[in-house]
Amino acid sequence: MAKAPILAPRGDDFAQWYQDVVAKAELAENGAARGTMVIRPYGYGLWERMQAEMDVRIKASGAENVYLPLFIPESYLKREAEHVEGFSPELAVVTVAGGKPLEEPLVVRPTSETLFGELMAKWIQSYRDLPLLLNQWANVVRWELRPRIFLRTTEFLWQEGHTAHATQEDAAAYARRILIDAYRDFMVNVLAMPVLVGAKTARERFAGAVNTMTCEGMMGDGKALQMGTSHELGQNFAKAFGMEYLGDTGTLQHCWTTSWGTSTRMVGGLIMCHGDDNGLRVPPAVAHIQAVVMVVRDDDAGTVADEGRRLVAELNAAGVRTRLDDQVATGFGRRATDWELKGVPVRIEIGPRDLAEGAVTLVRRDERTKAPAPIAGIAQTVSDLLAEIQGNLLAQATAFRDSRLSDVASIDEAIEAGRTGFARIPWELVGDDGEDRLAEHAISVRCLQTPDGGVPDGLDGPLHAIVARSY
Amino acid sequence: MAKAPILAPRGDDFAQWYQDVVAKAELAENGAARGTMVIRPYGYGLWERMQAEMDVRIKASGAENVYLPLFIPESYLKREAEHVEGFSPELAVVTVAGGKPLEEPLVVRPTSETLFGELMAKWIQSYRDLPLLLNQWANVVRWELRPRIFLRTTEFLWQEGHTAHATQEDAAAYARRILIDAYRDFMVNVLAMPVLVGAKTARERFAGAVNTMTCEGMMGDGKALQMGTSHELGQNFAKAFGMEYLGDTGTLQHCWTTSWGTSTRMVGGLIMCHGDDNGLRVPPAVAHIQAVVMVVRDDDAGTVADEGRRLVAELNAAGVRTRLDDQVATGFGRRATDWELKGVPVRIEIGPRDLAEGAVTLVRRDERTKAPAPIAGIAQTVSDLLAEIQGNLLAQATAFRDSRLSDVASIDEAIEAGRTGFARIPWELVGDDGEDRLAEHAISVRCLQTPDGGVPDGLDGPLHAIVARSY
Repeated sequence: MAKAPILAPRGDDFAQWYQDVVAKAELAENGAARGTMVIRPYGYGLWERMQAEMDVRIKASGAENVYLPLFIPESYLKREAEHVEGFSPELAVVTVAGGKPLEEPLVVRPTSETLFGELMAKWIQSYRDLPLLLNQWANVVRWELRPRIFLRTTEFLWQEGHTAHATQEDAAAYARRILIDAYRDFMVNVLAMPVLVGAKTARERFAGAVNTMTCEGMMGDGKALQMGTSHELGQNFAKAFGMEYLGDTGTLQHCWTTSWGTSTRMVGGLIMCHGDDNGLRVPPAVAHIQAVVMVVRDDDAGTVADEGRRLVAELNAAGVRTRLDDQVATGFGRRATDWELKGVPVRIEIGPRDLAEGAVTLVRRDERTKAPAPIAGIAQTVSDLLAEIQGNLLAQATAFRDSRLSDVASIDEAIEAGRTGFARIPWELVGDDGEDRLAEHAISVRCLQTPDGGVPDGLDGPLHAIVARSY
Repeated sequence: MAKAPILAPRGDDFAQWYQDVVAKAELAENGAARGTMVIRPYGYGLWERMQAEMDVRIKASGAENVYLPLFIPESYLKREAEHVEGFSPELAVVTVAGGKPLEEPLVVRPTSETLFGELMAKWIQSYRDLPLLLNQWANVVRWELRPRIFLRTTEFLWQEGHTAHATQEDAAAYARRILIDAYRDFMVNVLAMPVLVGAKTARERFAGAVNTMTCEGMMGDGKALQMGTSHELGQNFAKAFGMEYLGDTGTLQHCWTTSWGTSTRMVGGLIMCHGDDNGLRVPPAVAHIQAVVMVVRDDDAGTVADEGRRLVAELNAAGVRTRLDDQVATGFGRRATDWELKGVPVRIEIGPRDLAEGAVTLVRRDERTKAPAPIAGIAQTVSDLLAEIQGNLLAQATAFRDSRLSDVASIDEAIEAGRTGFARIPWELVGDDGEDRLAEHAISVRCLQTPDGGVPDGLDGPLHAIVARSY
């Protein structure tokens, strides 16, 4: 099968390769309004499964979903001065509605944080109302100067969680639980991305947070992508919104709060972590099409397509998400290339000769290898293969990450290592001055870790800094 | 148990009762921006299950989900003159973004119809691209003068489907399939609402449609609520957007399109269809809490709460969505009233005496009756009861609908019947003049049906008009 020059070579021009994959795999395209995106069915299917898998984990952590209004009166944003300063240049503002100028402009939410603050303050009266664990799936808008599809768009889809607790300990434990049990578990076990977890340095923290924890993925060009963050906000947020509760001893106290978020940016991360020169490679756990039955060609009676339909039904019944491709009027090579581009984990090719032999050809996308398989027991064969592919993608990504992760003993070495990957350096060798020097080379501390790669409780003790360039 | 006067009596002041239920059952509240709503966890849980059940049916009909941008350049809306005229006074417009006035204002989508038109025209080349079946779940904004929570809000959540077909027959069949297999099936079998289906009269049709079909529910005050519509747009929409395809004979032709939508308005319909003087009654199929295990009171060792937790685990494992209420510090009556308000289908009450007897008390919300049940086999007992409640709510709503649906033989009789319910009248007795006369009494033709209650193919032949006041 001749390979058409469909994508820019990944090793030569990673940025162009990324754009090509997004377009050619029909994931998304630019919207009419500047910096917005149209998420096409294949791309939205990925997001839907991400959302479903993440939602299960968020609910298992006890949070419930709500929906707050898109519009925020401008005056509300001023409640939280520290916060609004960060967002002000990014805001989109509605000034006309119902055919008339508005008395008070309405901001299109850049986050629902201020509304959560107002509402939670109202809903919380006593310790019995705590913890209050809320989450929202919604669109948000931030005016981006350099938009990039999925990674930095004017409008994006995300979830933001906001929780209030009676004690600092409970809030800290919850922020960590979301980071580890929801975010990292999802990223590692569903997205097959071996993210590093850790705490942000003071300068990299979210505005208003006393501790920001993060999941950092390594992309195919060795740069980091922040995939999700979980913040302890201490009592700062509660004080800004008057979020108080009556304790069981009868005294009024401020709550301790957390917030945490992940977004459609993860779709970009998935592409840049697993993609290759032939397109996307989708881990089976997040693939909405796990297998495609391709009719190579058919006889006049349509016998092969009939068997293809039967196979699709058998596989779907066995829980393998399968589509039929019986478009035999289109060349086989073009169709195969297209399914490769889309990264469907397994192709099941069947033609008249295969059928006569009671066999199919299985093509796995991760390794691009072909092998015959008997039609009898195909569902089990494909299920097993999907599990193997899921494991292999995680193993490959882990091996790549480790090959690009260097232990270094100076800022100079870190700068050198940061050209192509991550560097791990004792935090005591970095500090605030070191962060300045790294920044001159567009490198930042992605996270601080304990020596065993865990999330530190504070910034004291022997910590390692993971430093890298980033998206 | 004394009944607190929590809600306005439903028979005396239906509108106030509705507002009280929304507030007291903690479904939703008004947002800070005019006409918007905050959907609280209990209300959003209902919507999530509605969305999931509807989404399954939409996908089973072959459509795939996409996400289009929130913002639409103002010039885009002018592509479809007929349409924008209807929406113009309802638009919210962003004029400032990124700290600067925008060169071209951006409209916050009142629907994504124009974007679907532009994109589908681009994506469709040949007959091989048809049918193109797309759906979107999103928030939309329409500036409402008289907002009413869930029923008419400035921002609401909905799905809008847009499809393109090669032939008129295919488009007509698809619009009908969505109406019957997705919408009606969901409303009858999940929401337990016996909606009437039919076609709109020419004056009640969606702008630009050649046929609008509808699901009409009867509310507890005898008024109609339009729960969902499905439109055949002929080639009007395709012509406005240049949506053409190359047929297999090599000629360029305009597509035939459909569109269809349902929204958070259905939550309002659910409340007004099934609610009673004690609050909401949620059909089990759409209840995210189907049963609550209430610890009536406990001993010092917490034995009852332990058993309650075990029951919750057993029920959840058996697929019954169950919560524990072990807040014994709060009075039992107050908690019971609260679960009634929220309309949880089954309460499972357990105290020390029950536990000693190996029994619980089952309270069904639909009939407000209590009966003891052995703890052994509780999961099966509750599952059976939930199925019975689901059937009973549909039967009650059907009986109520039929009791308020009169066959009449004149416009005068229709006006009289329309004060308290629906009237069915031969369409030949109404016509355009009849619609004028009905309108003077705030009554409209909700739909036209064939004599057997089906959706007519056209407006010829012997049809019945269903007329009523409406929300």
